[in-house]
Amino acid sequence: MTTDHEHITVYKGNIVDSPSMEELRTLENGYLVVNGDRVIGTYATLPEEYKGCAITDYGHRIILPGFVDLHFHAPQFANRGLGLDKELLPWLEEYTFPEESKFKDLSYAKEIYPQVVHALWKNGTTRSVIFGSVHKESTEFLLDLFIDAGLGAFVGKVNMDRNCPEFIVEDSDQSLSETLEIIEKYADQSDLVRPILTPRFVPVCSTPLMEKLGAFARDHSVFVQSHISENQGEVDWVKELHPDSLDYASIYHDYGLFGHQPTIMAHCVFNTEKEIELMAKSGVYAAHCPHANYNLASGIMPVRNFLNKGVSVGLGTDVGAGHQVSIPKVMTAAVQASKIKWLESGKTLDPLKLSEVFYMGTKGGGRFFGKVGSFEADYAFDALVVDDRELGTLNLTLKERLERYLYIGDDRHIEKRYVAGKEVPEPKKLPDL
Amino acid sequence: MTTDHEHITVYKGNIVDSPSMEELRTLENGYLVVNGDRVIGTYATLPEEYKGCAITDYGHRIILPGFVDLHFHAPQFANRGLGLDKELLPWLEEYTFPEESKFKDLSYAKEIYPQVVHALWKNGTTRSVIFGSVHKESTEFLLDLFIDAGLGAFVGKVNMDRNCPEFIVEDSDQSLSETLEIIEKYADQSDLVRPILTPRFVPVCSTPLMEKLGAFARDHSVFVQSHISENQGEVDWVKELHPDSLDYASIYHDYGLFGHQPTIMAHCVFNTEKEIELMAKSGVYAAHCPHANYNLASGIMPVRNFLNKGVSVGLGTDVGAGHQVSIPKVMTAAVQASKIKWLESGKTLDPLKLSEVFYMGTKGGGRFFGKVGSFEADYAFDALVVDDRELGTLNLTLKERLERYLYIGDDRHIEKRYVAGKEVPEPKKLPDL
Repeated sequence: MTTDHEHITVYKGNIVDSPSMEELRTLENGYLVVNGDRVIGTYATLPEEYKGCAITDYGHRIILPGFVDLHFHAPQFANRGLGLDKELLPWLEEYTFPEESKFKDLSYAKEIYPQVVHALWKNGTTRSVIFGSVHKESTEFLLDLFIDAGLGAFVGKVNMDRNCPEFIVEDSDQSLSETLEIIEKYADQSDLVRPILTPRFVPVCSTPLMEKLGAFARDHSVFVQSHISENQGEVDWVKELHPDSLDYASIYHDYGLFGHQPTIMAHCVFNTEKEIELMAKSGVYAAHCPHANYNLASGIMPVRNFLNKGVSVGLGTDVGAGHQVSIPKVMTAAVQASKIKWLESGKTLDPLKLSEVFYMGTKGGGRFFGKVGSFEADYAFDALVVDDRELGTLNLTLKERLERYLYIGDDRHIEKRYVAGKEVPEPKKLPDL
Repeated sequence: MTTDHEHITVYKGNIVDSPSMEELRTLENGYLVVNGDRVIGTYATLPEEYKGCAITDYGHRIILPGFVDLHFHAPQFANRGLGLDKELLPWLEEYTFPEESKFKDLSYAKEIYPQVVHALWKNGTTRSVIFGSVHKESTEFLLDLFIDAGLGAFVGKVNMDRNCPEFIVEDSDQSLSETLEIIEKYADQSDLVRPILTPRFVPVCSTPLMEKLGAFARDHSVFVQSHISENQGEVDWVKELHPDSLDYASIYHDYGLFGHQPTIMAHCVFNTEKEIELMAKSGVYAAHCPHANYNLASGIMPVRNFLNKGVSVGLGTDVGAGHQVSIPKVMTAAVQASKIKWLESGKTLDPLKLSEVFYMGTKGGGRFFGKVGSFEADYAFDALVVDDRELGTLNLTLKERLERYLYIGDDRHIEKRYVAGKEVPEPKKLPDL
């Protein structure tokens, strides 16, 4: 192995990751060797060749991969924990669209978006996939903020040109041209932060708009995110709007927005077996957002069914329909929801294990970013250093310490955050009011 | 009104409480007048007669009633957030009973129980109803700790004399005699802290034991707590053990343990209509523990059905089956669970509103303690002072501020805790390990 020892750092501590859904690896008092932005490997004993390298000793602390959030609406941040008394469609109309429309003014984005980036940092979310609003300037400001912070993100300007209030609906041509401008401007600005195509969901996107966005995705190799089958009312509406289409998924598919480029679909509560198979075949990721699905009374995604059929599933906070920015809180909610689904399914869909949701919230979502989310060789060194002593860890195994931290820990227990080999300092947050 | 002005304190701030399930009262920049341990009233303008009294001005902060937790297992504290991969009966056998058996040694109680009392204090739980273990000495230590801390509590030595492992099963006579000793010793020691009869649940209590505990309850006017219909396996087991009984509730009822004295039954996931009617008629409280019911894959209590039939419902964290000590986290989980139940019931059981669960976690459970849980005249002044500025409260109404604090706030936002008129200082917690 030829490595430039100047760029090598060795981290010592209690190392946890999950290279696969089935495997939770734990290594007590182990060594994690990093070359620049990439992991070389994890070792119980430090190999001879690295003995001259700088060692950062994190002692009793846990070193785990940074959390990955596959679904987050930045312009809904100021609404989190409010107005959760409605289902999806009236909730969008009455609370969400009015709030998002404020981002027409860059000055409002300058007030809110630094708080978003700070909250992600604070909660250990090192990579996230973000919906912006329809507004180009504010969305560009958000891209800039992520670049400055050193956190990984895909950020999308939302497209929506029909069936929404006048104060927020877009002109189709302008929606397309502004999207293209952002894509071109940010295509090569950062290894960590990239634009993503973001047609909001079928009901608010005209077919010509979807068709042209599909062509953009193909021509510019841009990734795609959207929503699918979150709420029964939405599913019924899509059927009304597209009576001749086979199903919800096939509408996206027909316009080149369903896995032709790497694609995330959020929610997936009501997909048919055929749609799930299409997702698996097309490599479309599902973003499971249990808190949001509870809060908007949507239902529970049958995650086990998606896993059984080979769909890649990651986790999403879905702020603001989800109230908490924390991915560990989504992991534990996902386990809880799966237990109810297990009962509902007559005990046919096995509950999710904590190790499985830990995978989903690290490598499972991380794969959307490339080699991200575990400490295997050649993976980006995205990591959190957690001091869990306050949680009472005497006599616990490392696996139990992880479990307890995920269930009852919070941002106070995270001491350090690394993205692609670099420690990420606290980003600027606006002064408290 | 004759009041001794020396004992009057006026608190100024943004006051919230719910005198009934239907009413969330908010009073911005109002005055809360307290005489000793009791509330005199809340006022938009300070009445003339109190103008000479000392005013504690909490400015922009929210003043709300302290939280009430109707169901908490103190000796499971060290297990919270661990071993949540089983249903109730194997979970008791494999994780819970072994942990509880450690409280045979008072020294273990001295390690863990101060952390319990500290955690309740930290999370703003000013009154709680607590299961101890079967051990007299440790349970008395816990009663003493609550008395020293100045927090309100009912604390019960558990009774269980059949169907549990040898290392924890009790001799029936000793179970009874030790219970009686505790009752006599603590009957008049404190206005805030009292013993409570705690037959664990039917499957582990012999009929002679239940019969004699029922007689204790009657003879000594002691309150009662137990579990009912948490998990399908448990319900089936009870039917096997008592094939001639009408139902689970009637077993307790037959032995004088079902509302003959004020009684709490935790969980109530699978009760029949007849049982629910008996609860309503007998004034038995239901402790709703949604986190625990998720974690042990029990199901969701149809709370709306209980409310419709007139049962008093409060909230419980049910630590350690519930992982979080926080009642606001139970409130939001209760709203979420009720939305899934709404879907499951074909939209017949309306979701709980936040104002309803706020009532349950304050006055709804507080009623078990007497006049506790709101700021009406003659109620105990149990209160929290919350500084929510960090949560972004500009332009929010007081109701929205409460909503947001309950959804996304935590112990960091609680600045002061009062119980029965006195500020409660931070209790001693063992040094971190």
